[in-house]
Amino acid sequence: MAQGTATASEPAHLTINGERLWAALMELARIGAYDDPATGLAGVNRQSLTGEDAEGRRLLVRWMEEAGLQVSVDEMGTIFGRREGAAAGLAPVMAGSHVDSVGTAGAFDGCLGVLGALEVVRSLNERGIVTRRPLVIAAFTEEEGVRFGTDMLGSAVAAGRLTLEYAYDLVDAAGLRFGDELERIGFKGERPVRLDPPHAYVECHIEQGPVLLHEDLAIGVVTGVQAISWQRITVQGRAAHAGTTPTDLRVDAGLAAAQIVLKVREMVDSGRYGRLRATVGLITTSPGLPSVVPDRAELTVDLRNPDDAHMAAAERDLAAFLDALPESQPAPGLGIDTQRMAKTHQVPFDERIQDEIAAAAADLGFDTIRLMSGAGHDAQEMAAITPTAMVFVRGQYDGISHNPREYSTPEDCTAGITVLAHTLLRLTEEEDD
Amino acid sequence: MAQGTATASEPAHLTINGERLWAALMELARIGAYDDPATGLAGVNRQSLTGEDAEGRRLLVRWMEEAGLQVSVDEMGTIFGRREGAAAGLAPVMAGSHVDSVGTAGAFDGCLGVLGALEVVRSLNERGIVTRRPLVIAAFTEEEGVRFGTDMLGSAVAAGRLTLEYAYDLVDAAGLRFGDELERIGFKGERPVRLDPPHAYVECHIEQGPVLLHEDLAIGVVTGVQAISWQRITVQGRAAHAGTTPTDLRVDAGLAAAQIVLKVREMVDSGRYGRLRATVGLITTSPGLPSVVPDRAELTVDLRNPDDAHMAAAERDLAAFLDALPESQPAPGLGIDTQRMAKTHQVPFDERIQDEIAAAAADLGFDTIRLMSGAGHDAQEMAAITPTAMVFVRGQYDGISHNPREYSTPEDCTAGITVLAHTLLRLTEEEDD
Repeated sequence: MAQGTATASEPAHLTINGERLWAALMELARIGAYDDPATGLAGVNRQSLTGEDAEGRRLLVRWMEEAGLQVSVDEMGTIFGRREGAAAGLAPVMAGSHVDSVGTAGAFDGCLGVLGALEVVRSLNERGIVTRRPLVIAAFTEEEGVRFGTDMLGSAVAAGRLTLEYAYDLVDAAGLRFGDELERIGFKGERPVRLDPPHAYVECHIEQGPVLLHEDLAIGVVTGVQAISWQRITVQGRAAHAGTTPTDLRVDAGLAAAQIVLKVREMVDSGRYGRLRATVGLITTSPGLPSVVPDRAELTVDLRNPDDAHMAAAERDLAAFLDALPESQPAPGLGIDTQRMAKTHQVPFDERIQDEIAAAAADLGFDTIRLMSGAGHDAQEMAAITPTAMVFVRGQYDGISHNPREYSTPEDCTAGITVLAHTLLRLTEEEDD
Repeated sequence: MAQGTATASEPAHLTINGERLWAALMELARIGAYDDPATGLAGVNRQSLTGEDAEGRRLLVRWMEEAGLQVSVDEMGTIFGRREGAAAGLAPVMAGSHVDSVGTAGAFDGCLGVLGALEVVRSLNERGIVTRRPLVIAAFTEEEGVRFGTDMLGSAVAAGRLTLEYAYDLVDAAGLRFGDELERIGFKGERPVRLDPPHAYVECHIEQGPVLLHEDLAIGVVTGVQAISWQRITVQGRAAHAGTTPTDLRVDAGLAAAQIVLKVREMVDSGRYGRLRATVGLITTSPGLPSVVPDRAELTVDLRNPDDAHMAAAERDLAAFLDALPESQPAPGLGIDTQRMAKTHQVPFDERIQDEIAAAAADLGFDTIRLMSGAGHDAQEMAAITPTAMVFVRGQYDGISHNPREYSTPEDCTAGITVLAHTLLRLTEEEDD
């Protein structure tokens, strides 16, 4: 701590280094970078427990160590970097997110929360500020869920919603086991996975939606996460010759899959399920040959709703549609099997933490609104064990995310992390656990 | 020729050995056999130029040699087995089909024509019958088109519609090249691929449809093959986060693919395109993740029509639908690219050969009808260079094919090959080329 010491009683003076934050985001984004044909931009593909993920993790660990943090890795591969506080024995305040990505990602999703917290530490170091409570940065494993099929995996096991055994036995599309891949990349840590509840958890994340952009605000305070339902639907039809089998004798699994895709969109458009969003991200047919009526189709249905009752209605009506679908085919024999991949209820965030974020933002001169998160976040798992809330940072291009066009300006990233810093300074000074 | 000699002037006495034919079909079907989960039956997967195809080919070559045939393999891997005739210098009569299969096949498609012609030779041998013209059995390479994307490949090159270079440079889904795979399995032959036109070509094949079953007839005379159009459609959308991207900002490639699938079925149901059949056998989305709106979808559209004018109307209206599809999406940016995979016009078969088949069947006491083929066959390529027609054999279970349930009774197979034998005996006695 070169520039002398200070106490956290003068936090309003703390500024973060936005250029350094931006440089860290861009440097991490080079790992797993690819030329995206759809956008003509550089995208990021750093899916969990791949070689690229390992390389990103090693960079993060190096940066944490260079910032003087005490690094530990838990049994799920989640990376923690701890900065000691002045008062012994008090639970730390935790800030974090994730550094794994989807296959067609940008530079910000997850990384802003982790590298932003790192930037807070670097700025505290430069100012010589010692907080009362310890500050811990967490980079949770497999938040995206795209490789092993369950999102928020690392935080869900840390917070006790899922077991270590469940996570280890998950397999990816190539049949590779989570536990084996974790060991292979060298991030199967010793630290017991079940987390001692920190004093509070705060996560800064890009909004991944258009609300802040349309409101002309850099920062939002997140009130909670909407309910999420993921299902995998397998449709069993009957393979048949494309040229000879009369239409009224076909049991076409691909056609039934297409009917499900359209039904799901009709449900959204109907307005009957509140603010339902629905996505069919995966559609495949088998054998997948031009001249063979598909005997099998698989698809995933992702439903999101800020209201549990509306979500339940949507799930019920989709299930009824699936039940009736075989009857509507020209010939009998269609089979439909649904498998639950993920299900989370709406998660309200802690109002006191929300107020702290809003107050920190107000002190810094930022107007904010409160808004619900459309995406799942590690914060929703942490909310089960500690007071939790999130800071959202405005995205450009209608907040597009999971896409190389994902972009938040350097100014907005700096604003979000400055608010994160001041929120953390407020929370680390709190006395009671 | 153990049982003495006879001349073909007494063909009415020729009976074939139906049990031996059946045993050969069942023995070949063991190569590439698999347990089909959808039907609980044994299926056959002997796709072109795989190890299974090579094993099937070796068995066929051995059987041909044991039957005294002179075996040659052309540059496309098509196998010919020649039985000399009594008169020197006359063009042979050719009978054949294929022994490659789709991924979910039964025992009959293609194999009946090849092994049936072999059974004719075995029976001729036993009876010591020497035909006037030579008789040649052909087993054409990659008729199904499922591995390298172009069906009737071997016969199309033999008959001159496609070039050897085109065929060699085709690649399968794994990127393996046709020419390399042909060499790898040891069936890149020396015989020049362009075929000297035989005197006539006759192919016996299962109907792969329900017409003969519904007409209560074992045998049909095929008047021609319907027009076939294969297209691959690539839909370009925009990847976006499933939880946060508002529906009206989405450019969902998977949704557009589903709309195409339903449109194609609506076209069939409309009745506006005559006896149109349409199949979407392949649907895939990319990146194929539950939480990402697909940025890309691929699908194949297989259209069949016995009438070229109806086919042209269907293709035109589908193209217009695809042109208008981007406009109908909630947000701009959808791209659609179509690629022609295959296109054949309706192929009428030679009426004189049809009459010979019908006369042979009548002599044997079989009632027949004339019917169009719904599927493509090597015969449609051979029809370009020689008088050609086909014998169809009734299928059970509504003629289901490209499916392990594909089944023709031993009696019907014997009937079909008996008619083939007597047709070949008529044609091999003809004098003029």
